[in-house]
Amino acid sequence: MTGFSDLTRLVAPRSMVIVGASAREGSQGRRLVDNVLVHSGFDGEVYLVNPGSKEILGHPCYPSVADVPASGIDVALVIVSAVHVLPALEQCAAKGIAFAIVMSAGFAETGDEGRHMEQAIAALCRRTGLRVYGPNCPGLVNLRLGLGMTFSPAFKDDLNSGAIGLATQGGGLGRTVLQALSFGDGVGLWCSGGNECDLGLPDFIAHMAVDPHIRVIAVLMEGVKDGDRLRSALALARANDKPVVILKVGRSEQGVKAAQSHTASIAGSARVNSAVFRQHGAVEVQDLDELSAVARLLAAPRPAAGAGLAIVTFSGGTAALAADIAGAAGLPIASFSPSTSAALRELLPAFANIANPLDTTADIIREPALVTRCLRLVCDDPNVGAVMFPIPMDYAGITATMAGAIIEAASAQAKPIVPVWMSRRMGEGFKAMEEAGLLPFLSLTDCVAALRHLWPAAAPAATASAEAKAPAAADAHHAPSGEASSAALSESDGKALLRKAGIAVPEGGVAGNDSQAVELAKAVGFPVAMKIVSAQIPHKTEAGGVRLNLADEQAVRSAYQSILDTVSQRQPDAVIDGVLVEKMFPAGGREILIGVHRDDAFGLVLTVGLGGIFVEMLKDVAHRALPIKPQDASEMLRELKGYALLEGVRGQAPADIAALEDLLLRVSRFATAQGPRLRELDLNPVWVGRDGEGAVPLDALVVLDPAH
Amino acid sequence: MTGFSDLTRLVAPRSMVIVGASAREGSQGRRLVDNVLVHSGFDGEVYLVNPGSKEILGHPCYPSVADVPASGIDVALVIVSAVHVLPALEQCAAKGIAFAIVMSAGFAETGDEGRHMEQAIAALCRRTGLRVYGPNCPGLVNLRLGLGMTFSPAFKDDLNSGAIGLATQGGGLGRTVLQALSFGDGVGLWCSGGNECDLGLPDFIAHMAVDPHIRVIAVLMEGVKDGDRLRSALALARANDKPVVILKVGRSEQGVKAAQSHTASIAGSARVNSAVFRQHGAVEVQDLDELSAVARLLAAPRPAAGAGLAIVTFSGGTAALAADIAGAAGLPIASFSPSTSAALRELLPAFANIANPLDTTADIIREPALVTRCLRLVCDDPNVGAVMFPIPMDYAGITATMAGAIIEAASAQAKPIVPVWMSRRMGEGFKAMEEAGLLPFLSLTDCVAALRHLWPAAAPAATASAEAKAPAAADAHHAPSGEASSAALSESDGKALLRKAGIAVPEGGVAGNDSQAVELAKAVGFPVAMKIVSAQIPHKTEAGGVRLNLADEQAVRSAYQSILDTVSQRQPDAVIDGVLVEKMFPAGGREILIGVHRDDAFGLVLTVGLGGIFVEMLKDVAHRALPIKPQDASEMLRELKGYALLEGVRGQAPADIAALEDLLLRVSRFATAQGPRLRELDLNPVWVGRDGEGAVPLDALVVLDPAH
Repeated sequence: MTGFSDLTRLVAPRSMVIVGASAREGSQGRRLVDNVLVHSGFDGEVYLVNPGSKEILGHPCYPSVADVPASGIDVALVIVSAVHVLPALEQCAAKGIAFAIVMSAGFAETGDEGRHMEQAIAALCRRTGLRVYGPNCPGLVNLRLGLGMTFSPAFKDDLNSGAIGLATQGGGLGRTVLQALSFGDGVGLWCSGGNECDLGLPDFIAHMAVDPHIRVIAVLMEGVKDGDRLRSALALARANDKPVVILKVGRSEQGVKAAQSHTASIAGSARVNSAVFRQHGAVEVQDLDELSAVARLLAAPRPAAGAGLAIVTFSGGTAALAADIAGAAGLPIASFSPSTSAALRELLPAFANIANPLDTTADIIREPALVTRCLRLVCDDPNVGAVMFPIPMDYAGITATMAGAIIEAASAQAKPIVPVWMSRRMGEGFKAMEEAGLLPFLSLTDCVAALRHLWPAAAPAATASAEAKAPAAADAHHAPSGEASSAALSESDGKALLRKAGIAVPEGGVAGNDSQAVELAKAVGFPVAMKIVSAQIPHKTEAGGVRLNLADEQAVRSAYQSILDTVSQRQPDAVIDGVLVEKMFPAGGREILIGVHRDDAFGLVLTVGLGGIFVEMLKDVAHRALPIKPQDASEMLRELKGYALLEGVRGQAPADIAALEDLLLRVSRFATAQGPRLRELDLNPVWVGRDGEGAVPLDALVVLDPAH
Repeated sequence: MTGFSDLTRLVAPRSMVIVGASAREGSQGRRLVDNVLVHSGFDGEVYLVNPGSKEILGHPCYPSVADVPASGIDVALVIVSAVHVLPALEQCAAKGIAFAIVMSAGFAETGDEGRHMEQAIAALCRRTGLRVYGPNCPGLVNLRLGLGMTFSPAFKDDLNSGAIGLATQGGGLGRTVLQALSFGDGVGLWCSGGNECDLGLPDFIAHMAVDPHIRVIAVLMEGVKDGDRLRSALALARANDKPVVILKVGRSEQGVKAAQSHTASIAGSARVNSAVFRQHGAVEVQDLDELSAVARLLAAPRPAAGAGLAIVTFSGGTAALAADIAGAAGLPIASFSPSTSAALRELLPAFANIANPLDTTADIIREPALVTRCLRLVCDDPNVGAVMFPIPMDYAGITATMAGAIIEAASAQAKPIVPVWMSRRMGEGFKAMEEAGLLPFLSLTDCVAALRHLWPAAAPAATASAEAKAPAAADAHHAPSGEASSAALSESDGKALLRKAGIAVPEGGVAGNDSQAVELAKAVGFPVAMKIVSAQIPHKTEAGGVRLNLADEQAVRSAYQSILDTVSQRQPDAVIDGVLVEKMFPAGGREILIGVHRDDAFGLVLTVGLGGIFVEMLKDVAHRALPIKPQDASEMLRELKGYALLEGVRGQAPADIAALEDLLLRVSRFATAQGPRLRELDLNPVWVGRDGEGAVPLDALVVLDPAH
């Protein structure tokens, strides 16, 4: 771990000198003096330096730093033009000043000459022990102390403070974060190191990691200057249990271009950056509003283990939409405990649906006391870790009253109650919650994106993996239930039906004894595949009823016997119609799955996917309602994530995509022609050869409705 | 295609009767009368029906519909209690009234009795030709005509109109859309059919598809009652070139639960719904603010083919962040034409970076005329289809002035200029743009999500497939450049180095002739693998230098000769050190790739991924900066999308995950110990056996820096 210096004298100085102080209205030097002397609540010593003035705003002014009649000064604020910075810093060092904040621009961001000046400053730091913050930065703002060591005219308007530390490089967007946290728990300390010729982001993060007034660290980063020091700082924050939230600008190629023209640092590989942030437990966000929102959420107490999200609102549609968006993001939706449910039932109108999401019904909205009591009940439930309260529209006074009720409930709660203001009409209710520090989210999606970081295990990756573990359940419609299977045709009957409909299936036939099997094999040519034929055995492989790649007569003969033996042992009650003997298709074909099932709303629906792990692990399938047109067949294949496999990867020849599209159209015609009697159809696998070789269903399960 | 009735007399009636009109303040009947007679600009005939009143607000009142002294009435507005609805509708039918809007609640949403009443209404419709809209709905609002056939007290406050048709089921969230479109191009017609016992979403969509005042159709849907009619309506809209934007509530399991308790319709399978929407060219969105924003964008002229997005702002950090987010979503970023660039260079400060994203620098913000001219130049560029203008913070008057300049530029432009108001402080500038109908987005992410629908080809799926087609370029760091390859160790030297570091590699050795090869093969046991050894040949397979699965002496002997022959033909200049003979690992092991490369910011970085198509097509890899801890090794494997493959899918035994984690730690120690002299390391494939069988790199490429 790289060591970090103590920055206490920099962020909370007791004495300072302003180099470049000015009385001229509108100048940066004047705005800096105004911020320190007028707008800050600073009661330490301030010395002004300007060779051209005797006094500024009633304060004496010294011609140079050397002339300042004091020693042991904590910080020099430097705002002279670039060429005068180094001489001023030399005087600072000579006088034993601990830190300098150089706001002046005209350094590395302008080219080589500026870069050389920065190198000289860095050398001075190493030589003398002076530590420099900047140059080309807006200064440092300690909001907890109300101290603005900055020339920004906006300082006096952004004085809300709190437990969030904000560390940035370029200063511009930092103010957007301040504006987003104007009420409630805000930014207590903002460090923005500009070109970072000496002190930089890692130093600020490391300071905030040990600053007892900071509970969470928000970082807005354009480039990584020193990866090792950044990692050390992140590790320190983690060790001190301070969540770090990072927005890294320059993730895309376009972003990198813009970032490099804006700062003078290394953009780094976006994927590596993200991985390193994760490695050190930092949370990465994608947008600026997310940065402030997540920092705010992480500054509050975290949900207890096992506690989930409650959704409370007064509109059914809103409840459903909020549950949708939260569910899609994998947020854990809490189940109310029986006592909470009972108490809510007592409280709410009889026709309210007592569940999570909780729709109180619109009847409640004129009774603020009910809203408050309802929220308290939900918050008191140990299964609940946080409450989302979406407000779908602005009804002026009515919504304002409700906002008051939410504010009252939140004020008595440790658990976060997170309102979502879904209307664009920012009415009284919005303003009231904002000023009470509840900071409503402006969309459900944004709210859910932020809430996800309260339940890191709910990240989409984890969800995907959980899904991957249960492919069978999700694809249940492809496996007919026991009841339905009575209507399943045997493979050979199913294939006969397909063949009649103009869908090519492998040549072959059903053998009733081993000699017939050999005859059939000779007729279609070796090697062959052999499979049990029985309407009671839809899952032939599991029943031991499949043998592949049988190369000669002897193999066919013994396979016949072995199939009958195994099946009769495993499924003694199945009626056996014989053994299907078919031409074996060459290995190396691509495996596709084609299915048709019946959707309650849209009737027959066609599904296509890449076979094997693509379907099972990645759910890589496309659907269309039947019938389909040629364009649909083409589009649904191209929707597949694994479409490139059909085009050919790693030097593989392209698959016969035209034949596959044609097969999809034939399946569509077949299924549509069957009409209501078709319950489902499963062609799995479909063998797809190389261009020109065709696409052939190797197995077929056709389930008809016995009622038709 | 199912036929649709002409709804003109319903949405733009010339005469109507209000059944359940009331004078009682606060009642729904009174609010309905007020909306029609006071707040609407309706100049047709209105007849009031209420058996208990002689007149209401100076209008005569009739005891029943039968008593109304008129015929050929277009619409009956029905707001009596549920039990009185059917008799009233019978009178309407008898009187030849064309349409009835039934707002009364108490039907299917309350249970079986209500459901039976609806069935009776539907039967009446079939019998008499009366068409019914509702019941349990807020009414129908024709904003273009200023006509509110609704009891909503909010009607009079939401009168902005425009070319967007809004079709909903439950009415609540529709008002949020109206509030979002309060300025600029708004909703011209809002149909909200409640329980849809007769007319429903498909009818409204079909009407809007042919209504000349509607350019885009926004749909908020909870359930699909009749999939075929919905498909027909979507097809009609597509045929008439009217974009349809759909928000379907009830996509997640949680959402379905909430939606079913709220309406009485079929929720349908979310994946099938989405596929059908896509099949018919409809755009599906995920959130309510997205619904209104995308509808607005699609109502404007679409970007010309080949035209991309321009990003203009006055802050470098904002430009980079906006480009990041737009780039990640796959939006096409326009290149300015040379004449645009030249004109911008003329206009902007010398240090502004003339590129897209365009950072005008903050100098411009006090010169509104420059902002306007700059936007006009960008819009006039034929390469530009739309302009995003992010405003990162509120500077009160300054941002208000800039907003004025944007409004001025937008007013003279057909191409959309889309402002993004990134601050939470909704200052004057925000309000001015809102009221001018520019409707600023409230975050970059939301803006980009909406803009994506202007470039449908830029959908993430397309991006992923494009990436998949160029795996080599993206993984370039794994293939040493020609220059670097001079420092690549031969496979046997690399493996020797690894073996010394405690990393198990296959047993074997380098043979200088075929007899040595046979000796080595006998020593390690058949079958063996044989590979050319040469520092000049990092890609052995491509050079023809690899033979696998050699089962006996003869095979080894001929492989030796064949390798030398092929390689000397393909790479005659390579110095051959011999042929590596190694124990062959059994088929069926899982293939993993482990790599180390040097990142500019973080130094040595470890990469692990599933071999083959998982890495190439899905970029399924995880990274960590070195050194790693045991927890990192475990976490990075579990981050992989294909992790389930290691756990075992389709009945496969689990892989030796513990051995793989151990190998990652050993690689980390090895690479870290090499320090700066290690340029890169590629173990590909790594064979991972079943639990207990270990994890062994079968190939190794070690590249050292000759300077160290």
